[in-house]
Amino acid sequence: MSGEDAPAEQQQNAVDQKQETKPAEEPKAEPPKTEPAPAAAAAAADADAAAAAATPAATTEKVPEEDTFTYRALVLTGYGGYDKVKLQVKKGKPALKAGEVLVRVKACGLNFADLMARQGLYDRLPSPPVTPGMECSGVVEAVGEEVTDRKVGDKVMVLSRFGLWQEVAAVPATHTFLIPEGMSFEEAAALPVNYITAYMMLFDFGNLRPNQSVLVHAAAGGVGIAATQLCSTVKDVTVFGTASASKHETISQGGVTHPIDYRTKDYVEEVRKISPKGMDIILDPLGGSDTHKAYNLLKPMGKLITYGASNMLAGQKKNLLAVAKNWYHQFSIHTLSLIQGNKSVCGFHLGYLDGETELLTQAMNTILDLYKQGKVKPRIDSTWHLEQVGDAMRKMQERNNIGKVILNTEPMPEEEKKEEPKKEDKKKDDKKKEEKKKDDGKKEEKKDDKKKEEPKKEEKKEEEKKEEPNKEEK
Amino acid sequence: MSGEDAPAEQQQNAVDQKQETKPAEEPKAEPPKTEPAPAAAAAAADADAAAAAATPAATTEKVPEEDTFTYRALVLTGYGGYDKVKLQVKKGKPALKAGEVLVRVKACGLNFADLMARQGLYDRLPSPPVTPGMECSGVVEAVGEEVTDRKVGDKVMVLSRFGLWQEVAAVPATHTFLIPEGMSFEEAAALPVNYITAYMMLFDFGNLRPNQSVLVHAAAGGVGIAATQLCSTVKDVTVFGTASASKHETISQGGVTHPIDYRTKDYVEEVRKISPKGMDIILDPLGGSDTHKAYNLLKPMGKLITYGASNMLAGQKKNLLAVAKNWYHQFSIHTLSLIQGNKSVCGFHLGYLDGETELLTQAMNTILDLYKQGKVKPRIDSTWHLEQVGDAMRKMQERNNIGKVILNTEPMPEEEKKEEPKKEDKKKDDKKKEEKKKDDGKKEEKKDDKKKEEPKKEEKKEEEKKEEPNKEEK
Repeated sequence: MSGEDAPAEQQQNAVDQKQETKPAEEPKAEPPKTEPAPAAAAAAADADAAAAAATPAATTEKVPEEDTFTYRALVLTGYGGYDKVKLQVKKGKPALKAGEVLVRVKACGLNFADLMARQGLYDRLPSPPVTPGMECSGVVEAVGEEVTDRKVGDKVMVLSRFGLWQEVAAVPATHTFLIPEGMSFEEAAALPVNYITAYMMLFDFGNLRPNQSVLVHAAAGGVGIAATQLCSTVKDVTVFGTASASKHETISQGGVTHPIDYRTKDYVEEVRKISPKGMDIILDPLGGSDTHKAYNLLKPMGKLITYGASNMLAGQKKNLLAVAKNWYHQFSIHTLSLIQGNKSVCGFHLGYLDGETELLTQAMNTILDLYKQGKVKPRIDSTWHLEQVGDAMRKMQERNNIGKVILNTEPMPEEEKKEEPKKEDKKKDDKKKEEKKKDDGKKEEKKDDKKKEEPKKEEKKEEEKKEEPNKEEK
Repeated sequence: MSGEDAPAEQQQNAVDQKQETKPAEEPKAEPPKTEPAPAAAAAAADADAAAAAATPAATTEKVPEEDTFTYRALVLTGYGGYDKVKLQVKKGKPALKAGEVLVRVKACGLNFADLMARQGLYDRLPSPPVTPGMECSGVVEAVGEEVTDRKVGDKVMVLSRFGLWQEVAAVPATHTFLIPEGMSFEEAAALPVNYITAYMMLFDFGNLRPNQSVLVHAAAGGVGIAATQLCSTVKDVTVFGTASASKHETISQGGVTHPIDYRTKDYVEEVRKISPKGMDIILDPLGGSDTHKAYNLLKPMGKLITYGASNMLAGQKKNLLAVAKNWYHQFSIHTLSLIQGNKSVCGFHLGYLDGETELLTQAMNTILDLYKQGKVKPRIDSTWHLEQVGDAMRKMQERNNIGKVILNTEPMPEEEKKEEPKKEDKKKDDKKKEEKKKDDGKKEEKKDDKKKEEPKKEEKKEEEKKEEPNKEEK
């Protein structure tokens, strides 16, 4: 087993052995209320650790638990491949500031921004070492001063700029939302980022109305499925969705009117065949030349909403060619062209909206109402242990998922660890893949032979999910 | 009196004397269903004229009226100053195609696009000679085949790509809208372009909702007043409006919450003082560097809607420096900036939407409902005879209007013609103005001494308007 590709659980052992005394990234630095200051946080952590370990006389206020409290956290240790996210054990209970709550995390959502961040392509994540993770679900374990609307025991979902891929997290209470009756922790971890993103794109920028048409790229992804469900809440909306052919049945059942296999067909031609005038709304997570295509596919009064640059993600490590290509083809628009076309171009990224508590709360409340009415429901693709974060990221990046990829915080049973596939094979595959990437610089090919590497618990039916979804893996 | 500045009625005489036999621009070429083909239209007109005049034996189907029918039309004879729009007399009743109606025009609206067109800055007007005019009101005088929902005698308002500044116009019935009870012809001529523009910007692209803030530039202009009234139909919308100080009282009464004098103050600073986070929606008719300012003034999820480049209009003739400046400063935006800002940039121009009959009809129906409910009402700044089109354009271009500048088709009484001011003075003023322009390249200075040149009938109170508003001038 190569050191470079050591899976997360191996890293955890290594960390355990070192008895790491210098947690460079403390949860209390994570609430995204201000610009990150990792150096200051590290210094504070140093001081805490020193105080806790070396001078017990000086810390009489601290109950013994503060010393012995440990929790596991995923830490991005540097930019690069899947192995750069390592599982570490941290010491010391996160201190709560006024307005914060301590959440015992049950499940975490993976997002494309996390994959971009790992390659150093996402500027909302502070420099490594840092804990990624924009969303999670869990139970309130403690409340800070001035918190009036959350209490210990509340089941909540959390939205944050980063820092949620760990067993406990201190977050502003305003960034938490109560989990409604009947929603599992996995669903709750799958909901915030994808549904708020899809909701604000479609109903704020997109101003979606009856009889309109929407093109949803990556319709089998987390945002794609959320967007399709939200489109279904409006009368007579036609959804064009791109996905590889093997996912068409699923997305059709989910509400996509016209599934398009972008791997074998020119999606622009396919859309024009059915809708010669083009689209009212296009959701574009791809960037680069696909944004140009989207712009040209808009009807008069059409809205192009771009929310990512996933074309940049070619291979597990930063692919400079793909990045350069994306930059080179980056869409730039003059107002005169917009005027002559009567078009709208919008950019959306939830990671830059973290200060907009009111907007986000409004959106979330509407989404939760739709959930309670049975109109939207997150679809879980697969659930992975923290130790498997590399595989989880791989599944998403290689676009083998249909719906959300979730991490759960339950420790991985020993027997599952032994079933882990050989990493050497995977490494070879990666090399092949990256070479392929250089040829076409586009979406990744689906590899059926990857399937054997996936954990057994994925492809679970949603109906089977209970509020304690991890129990069955214990 | 200089030939260059000869007013429109002088030109009319000249044309009358020539007994112009070659109408280069026939109304039947005007319905904007296809791309303009002025050469073909002129050829057709030639053929008609030749047939009508020289070979009466071959045109036995034509009733004598077809020969003797004449009507006055404003014609843009070339690009340049106010004098380039000349009043001409045309012969021959416009032939109706299937789906068209012949409208006896009562009043016409002036729009910025008409001013741009006169300088050769608007590509939706065919090359001169051509009759400008995007909107009018009048009475249906004849209906073509296949027209089922309009009849002779219907009072209508008309929206067209061009060609409405004349006494009769043949237009597609789908481009006409019935004038509701109680609306004057002047109001009806003032409504289509400004209100559809404001409506679609605010409610389609802008997605205006309660509690939002809107910055309206040129708040005393036609679109500005329409936008302000439409904002008032939504709960708790705050309107910031720029206008020169003398217009503040009027626009405040019209619904502008915070009037800003852009001539003496930095409007960006003024807006920030009151709304530090910026604006939800900005309507930008200015272009150039003002579009950049608008973009920076947007809140997260804010929408900038640009709908013109009036900064290009500096002086009565094309000012190459102003045009170049506008181009140089033209706003161009990268998607990454949009994403990081969570912003939307939209372009709107009604002139490029002429094929979207359904969209326009929907918008118009909503606006007419609001009119019937008393929630919107066009404000007429002043009404001018066709002979005075130069002065009417000047008033608008120099931003001396509050509300809509209207032309009516009643012939100008002889006694009013004698009261016309000396054109030499005006010419000198123009020269001064254009020099000033070169210094600042921005909005024009208001000249109080211009006021004496304005016709007596302007500044009429809206309450005085009747359905036959021109009677009082007869």
